[in-house]
Amino acid sequence: MSIKKILILPGDGIGPEIMAEAVKVLELLKSEGEQLEWSFGHLGGAAYDAEGHPYPESTQKAARAADAILMGAVGGPKYDALPRAVRPEQGILGIRKDLGLFANLRPALAYEELAAASSFKPEIIAGLDILILRELTGDIYFGAPRGRRTNAEGHAEGFDTMHYSAPEVERIARVAFEAARKRSKRVCSVDKENVLETSRLWREVMINVSKDYPDVELTHMYVDNAAMQLVKYPKQFDVMVTGNIFGDILSDEASMLAGSIGMLPSASLDVNNKGLYEPSHGSAPDIMGQNKANPLATILSMAMMFKYTFNHNDLSDRIDAAVKKVLKQGHRTGDIAQKGEKIIGTKEMGDALVAAL
Amino acid sequence: MSIKKILILPGDGIGPEIMAEAVKVLELLKSEGEQLEWSFGHLGGAAYDAEGHPYPESTQKAARAADAILMGAVGGPKYDALPRAVRPEQGILGIRKDLGLFANLRPALAYEELAAASSFKPEIIAGLDILILRELTGDIYFGAPRGRRTNAEGHAEGFDTMHYSAPEVERIARVAFEAARKRSKRVCSVDKENVLETSRLWREVMINVSKDYPDVELTHMYVDNAAMQLVKYPKQFDVMVTGNIFGDILSDEASMLAGSIGMLPSASLDVNNKGLYEPSHGSAPDIMGQNKANPLATILSMAMMFKYTFNHNDLSDRIDAAVKKVLKQGHRTGDIAQKGEKIIGTKEMGDALVAAL
Ligand SMILES: CC(C)[C@H](C(=O)O)[C@@H](O)C(=O)O
Ligand SMILES: CC(C)[C@H](C(=O)O)[C@@H](O)C(=O)O
Repeated sequence: MSIKKILILPGDGIGPEIMAEAVKVLELLKSEGEQLEWSFGHLGGAAYDAEGHPYPESTQKAARAADAILMGAVGGPKYDALPRAVRPEQGILGIRKDLGLFANLRPALAYEELAAASSFKPEIIAGLDILILRELTGDIYFGAPRGRRTNAEGHAEGFDTMHYSAPEVERIARVAFEAARKRSKRVCSVDKENVLETSRLWREVMINVSKDYPDVELTHMYVDNAAMQLVKYPKQFDVMVTGNIFGDILSDEASMLAGSIGMLPSASLDVNNKGLYEPSHGSAPDIMGQNKANPLATILSMAMMFKYTFNHNDLSDRIDAAVKKVLKQGHRTGDIAQKGEKIIGTKEMGDALVAAL
Repeated sequence: MSIKKILILPGDGIGPEIMAEAVKVLELLKSEGEQLEWSFGHLGGAAYDAEGHPYPESTQKAARAADAILMGAVGGPKYDALPRAVRPEQGILGIRKDLGLFANLRPALAYEELAAASSFKPEIIAGLDILILRELTGDIYFGAPRGRRTNAEGHAEGFDTMHYSAPEVERIARVAFEAARKRSKRVCSVDKENVLETSRLWREVMINVSKDYPDVELTHMYVDNAAMQLVKYPKQFDVMVTGNIFGDILSDEASMLAGSIGMLPSASLDVNNKGLYEPSHGSAPDIMGQNKANPLATILSMAMMFKYTFNHNDLSDRIDAAVKKVLKQGHRTGDIAQKGEKIIGTKEMGDALVAAL
């Protein structure tokens, strides 16, 4: 591809603020000659306000046409009372499903400079570098039937269906093994095989696919134990692969290993590595509009975009290095500052990052 | 009740060893005049070996007749290849369901003396005292339909059903609010209401039941955020209540806050406070028969038995105090020892505990 078309979906809460800083980076890169083009669209609550739907048709069209998508965050108390079908979360779930973004990559990396901001003892997290791979378009998130019914005793009952098909497991398994090949060659597959039928299929397929990757070690862990081991001795992991709901829980837990979720990017890829890139944190309505949010997770998500969708590793590495540099220089937004440290704003952090680039 | 009838199910792996130490405590109490009577039964792999089923009829009868049950741990690699229906886990799931043990209480307490054994910075866990309440007889663990099928494209598919009825949620809600009344009067209900229909019902019922407890504060948290907050700032919680699968994950995660899962007891109660008491840890087949296991979680589970089933708080407090005393005296099994500390065996720890009592 010659010109890279990026769709930007700032979303709700702090989304527009952090995205403005990411755009500064895009502008710099474009001024240097990168073939980049971007446009803006609505997603989540902002889309509901503007067009009556959290994933409106205008966004669907633009998203399908784009090469990659940069997203801020969605949701906020303003939208809590809306009917479920038009709540902001449906915007995210909708775009993931619509574009087939089945592979969610969530690196958990401990920055040396931020060890003080972490709940963990330095020796637990020093040098930590794990990749959590979450399946993103299946499982209990999208399973049918689901709903409300009255049971035989006349009581209300809520129900959902967890399920995976073999090909769904196979494609995320391949992403895991391929990723592990470029890392420490170890995949830990997380399930609840001692209880769930879905997990039994999951584990069988993992074992089958592993035969194509004899150079990669495959282990299995129950999800309860994984939640414990992540906290006990996180450095035992290289690539962790799991289903949608377990991955939702474990990747948020793991984000704390890095000190602040304000530092963690994510990528959600389709079969052709087209991707949606977003920070792992939420829309933080409590600090919205106050120039307090940390834009680094969004900027690191952009770095992932250059790596995974555009195969432009140099650019990706350059952005990663600039983030390390601003940390080393001592720049801190509130979420990563220790007592006594000087706190700067969203804009100032963005400017520092652009300068470091 | 005059004579308290206790059924002891040592189970597999380290189960028999740790239970032998708990029995020493029972013997001491009986010699002091407590009206206690106990018998032994099989559960899990041991029951499969002896009687061909992980929860055999002999155990069913004895369990129904007992006032309380003390369990060790079940499972081990020896049984991994068995058909699912007779695997050790089915013993646990079977007895929970059979006896209607719907309320699983898992306290997470940080012992000052063990702060060094924890992954966390001392200030994160000092003084921590939270109670995780997990619903134990519903949810995706027991939901139907479940199984394997071929989908429309001819591919294998595994599926399970998550579900809760309103009365199931109501009774665990009441346990949570009652427990909170005796503590800091705060209940945090954990769900995934932004995605799951089951969670939507769960949250509605929690809100309804809370109206009977105006003195208790109810908050809600998504399970992904709860997994993060438990690690970020665990002291924000008092009572956390959640469903079976989320509780399985979060209570194991929280166990690490205490330094070692070898210190954590649990209780599973029916509507009349009849209970099954077991350590939170597993059967640890790797150290079985080596006099290495920590018996304290089993002994603390017995303390919970005196409190919750027998309403004998004095005895419960006395056992808790004896555990604190042996820790203060510096007794350490391997799981809670720091480098350089002297390590004692299972039996020696049991003897130290009896002496401290
Ligand atoms: C907003 C919500 C539906 C979403 C999810 O559960 O997938 C979020 O928690 C995430 O992890 O991106
Ligand atoms: C052994 C297994 C079925 C069980 C569960 O998942 O409930 C265990 O993990 C537990 O928490 O007691």
